[in-house]
Amino acid sequence: MAVDFRGHPMFPSTGFNAPTRFEADIYDCEVWGKIPSDIDGTFYRIQCDFQYRPPQNEWPTGFNGDGHVSRFRFKDGNVNFRSRYVQTARLQAEREAHRRLYGVYRNHYTDDPSVAKLERSAANTHLYWHGGKLLVLKEDSLPWHIDPHTLETRGIWTFNGRYTATSMSAHPKIDPVTGEMIAYGYQAKGDLTNDVAVYTMNRHGDITHEVWFKAPYVGIMHDCAITQNYVLIPLVARTTSDARLKTGEPMWAWDGNLSTMVAVVPRGGTSKDVRWFKGPARNTLHFLNARDHKDGRITMELPTSSGERDASQIRRWTFNMNSKKDTFDEEVVSTANGVLARMDDRFLSLPYKYCYVGNRDPNLPFDKARAGGMGGFVTNQYQRVDVNTGATSSYFVGPVQSLQESCFMPRKGGRAEGDGYLMGIANNYESMSSDLVIVDAQRLEEGAIATVKLPFRLRGGTHTNWFGADELPSLVQA
Amino acid sequence: MAVDFRGHPMFPSTGFNAPTRFEADIYDCEVWGKIPSDIDGTFYRIQCDFQYRPPQNEWPTGFNGDGHVSRFRFKDGNVNFRSRYVQTARLQAEREAHRRLYGVYRNHYTDDPSVAKLERSAANTHLYWHGGKLLVLKEDSLPWHIDPHTLETRGIWTFNGRYTATSMSAHPKIDPVTGEMIAYGYQAKGDLTNDVAVYTMNRHGDITHEVWFKAPYVGIMHDCAITQNYVLIPLVARTTSDARLKTGEPMWAWDGNLSTMVAVVPRGGTSKDVRWFKGPARNTLHFLNARDHKDGRITMELPTSSGERDASQIRRWTFNMNSKKDTFDEEVVSTANGVLARMDDRFLSLPYKYCYVGNRDPNLPFDKARAGGMGGFVTNQYQRVDVNTGATSSYFVGPVQSLQESCFMPRKGGRAEGDGYLMGIANNYESMSSDLVIVDAQRLEEGAIATVKLPFRLRGGTHTNWFGADELPSLVQA
Repeated sequence: MAVDFRGHPMFPSTGFNAPTRFEADIYDCEVWGKIPSDIDGTFYRIQCDFQYRPPQNEWPTGFNGDGHVSRFRFKDGNVNFRSRYVQTARLQAEREAHRRLYGVYRNHYTDDPSVAKLERSAANTHLYWHGGKLLVLKEDSLPWHIDPHTLETRGIWTFNGRYTATSMSAHPKIDPVTGEMIAYGYQAKGDLTNDVAVYTMNRHGDITHEVWFKAPYVGIMHDCAITQNYVLIPLVARTTSDARLKTGEPMWAWDGNLSTMVAVVPRGGTSKDVRWFKGPARNTLHFLNARDHKDGRITMELPTSSGERDASQIRRWTFNMNSKKDTFDEEVVSTANGVLARMDDRFLSLPYKYCYVGNRDPNLPFDKARAGGMGGFVTNQYQRVDVNTGATSSYFVGPVQSLQESCFMPRKGGRAEGDGYLMGIANNYESMSSDLVIVDAQRLEEGAIATVKLPFRLRGGTHTNWFGADELPSLVQA
Repeated sequence: MAVDFRGHPMFPSTGFNAPTRFEADIYDCEVWGKIPSDIDGTFYRIQCDFQYRPPQNEWPTGFNGDGHVSRFRFKDGNVNFRSRYVQTARLQAEREAHRRLYGVYRNHYTDDPSVAKLERSAANTHLYWHGGKLLVLKEDSLPWHIDPHTLETRGIWTFNGRYTATSMSAHPKIDPVTGEMIAYGYQAKGDLTNDVAVYTMNRHGDITHEVWFKAPYVGIMHDCAITQNYVLIPLVARTTSDARLKTGEPMWAWDGNLSTMVAVVPRGGTSKDVRWFKGPARNTLHFLNARDHKDGRITMELPTSSGERDASQIRRWTFNMNSKKDTFDEEVVSTANGVLARMDDRFLSLPYKYCYVGNRDPNLPFDKARAGGMGGFVTNQYQRVDVNTGATSSYFVGPVQSLQESCFMPRKGGRAEGDGYLMGIANNYESMSSDLVIVDAQRLEEGAIATVKLPFRLRGGTHTNWFGADELPSLVQA
């Protein structure tokens, strides 16, 4: 098996991470343990899959794969599973041709000429329920939306034509106070443009504000953070160019000589209000949370490593809005490793304590042989980290399993931060099938309270979200 | 893992034979090799699955599991997969209760009282396309029918109320000359009755003839054979009684002291015309073919062993209709082991040469560790046996695979017996997923010409059938 510099398997792979390719329904999944009956709602996850095998130099994690959504509907202690491809224009074109038409990640030079004018979304990165629509997002293109229960694809969604950027990031943020969604696009006037557009949608999904500005270089702007007053959009040290694309490689290359640049955009402000803060090159993609302080500081926590090969840590960046200084400060909050930190989203943009991160305790055994050589990806614990004190507690999964991104769901009626459950998919390399583990988020060390046993394998996913039954439309079809 | 006296795993098992439980669709299955473009039609298979786990003493092969149909639709070298449960009354009742309501195989004493009056079919044994309906059969109950493309369940089918027996065997026969279906039921007036009913349906599916008679004891009558003039229904050495059922065990027990009794029923005849032929106890369930001879003899070939522990062989039984002798003669055609013999069904009831049987060559390696201890079930070859000469040729599957029942499909335009393909599911214990292997039936020794790679596991199946695109209604939905 071909491996990249980290020892991660290259695509197309066999074994656990081979494309899933099927769409399935399970009525009453098999459950070990007992699902608390107050869990009422839907856990969504999405994976980059491949209807047809991609070129050999497609990224190891396959970010150019077709979006494939999994839905776990919980009610009364039972859970029904459904998975569907998002029926994007590209998937339909490939199915009609019975072969792969797209090349490597965001490189149109590697695509078949027949798809040059098609909407390009692979709809494979993240899902958000907002304004009565379940949006499926991919940062290089427009949102698609799907039915939250049947997962049937509804089409492209441009907010009644008001969203004019050519792309939307897969990481908008929903303000728990106002119900607004803050969304943005970068390369927002097409490939390799340095335009950035930030939009506010009200709780009904109507665009109420937008602001456009330019980034100092063309680099990845994968995620953002919000406070009650600001939107923060980091531009980090991965760049690209037309020359690079012409080599036939995927879009991004790490460049440790680049500065990290963070756009701090006042919510409701104009392009003139945008300030850029500078810092050293940082290897990061996903951010945790940010908040305003009374003294004019903004703090933002995120998992990041300094370069491409050192371990990730949870760090805090501080932006002083009362100063003209154009750099941000950095401190280490926790050495907890892991690049996908989640939180109790009811505290997004607000003072908060906890983050949940999947990572690996190297002292615990893991049967590498069973993992098919995927040791580099092994995540054997979900860790809760107190971002104020650095204190941690951990849930450890079994030695033949590796965890995918977790998601926090609040306990019904509970209002305190972190009062709820954590759930996520565990790859079970022994049975070559997937388990959904559910842990009490306040008692991680007590282990899974329930495990949903799937009779098949779901390859590594990208992101997850939970939406309660009180948020989603009522369920007509199971 | 609990095992029976043969070393076969008992239910509920883990590993390859654990219940499948999901319903899936795959558009354009991944294919290794090349599917000949003249393969145009649908390969069906069915497995006994379990929506909910059965009692521990359910048979190792789980014949009381819920019917779960797989459909492989071939066209232009591509293949689409679909699997669905048959939505029987019992499945729906169990889903509503969120638990198993049925006990062990054909023992109502072990069922939940709430299901006493429900139609009992698990619809899990075999499928036949006849008279414009895809019938899904289970010998203890009435036929159900499903849509041949969507696999949507249509309901119970009693041939416009004309089928009055309480059960239909899963092994009717379709006469390739007249297009008639010969079907029968045993225990045909309810559990433990010794009534047998034989029906003829014309090519439109209308019942044109029926005959009722009594069997000499209550025993299993799982399969039949037809000639152009007769229907042969063996009654073999497995019996039952109300006393046995009251012990909570599945219906059947082997009794080597019983005679094999074969009912020879003239097609179109009356109950008075039925003759019974006697022979020693034989351990057999599935028959191959039969034919008339000009001298009044009927010959019938079948895989059988003499007792419960000796290897199966292909033997020939001869019935002399010109003699008053009430016994049949037996000879060995081939020592090819294997209990599921198939043929080119265009030669059913007619002179023929070939049978196709799955069995195990003990000289070939098989990695038992990978098979999860299921060595007893290993089938590492499909063998073509010439029933006249005993000559064989073989297709061998890889050392980490075990084959399920095969099916013959004629080559388009070919009329010679055996000119076509053989296909069947191989359990791949290395990847814990299922392969559909396709072999040229005249060149078995050349190996698979194409392998359809499924991304998941299909547990052991019961039976398979192939229906060409020219027989099935045209395909609206893929």
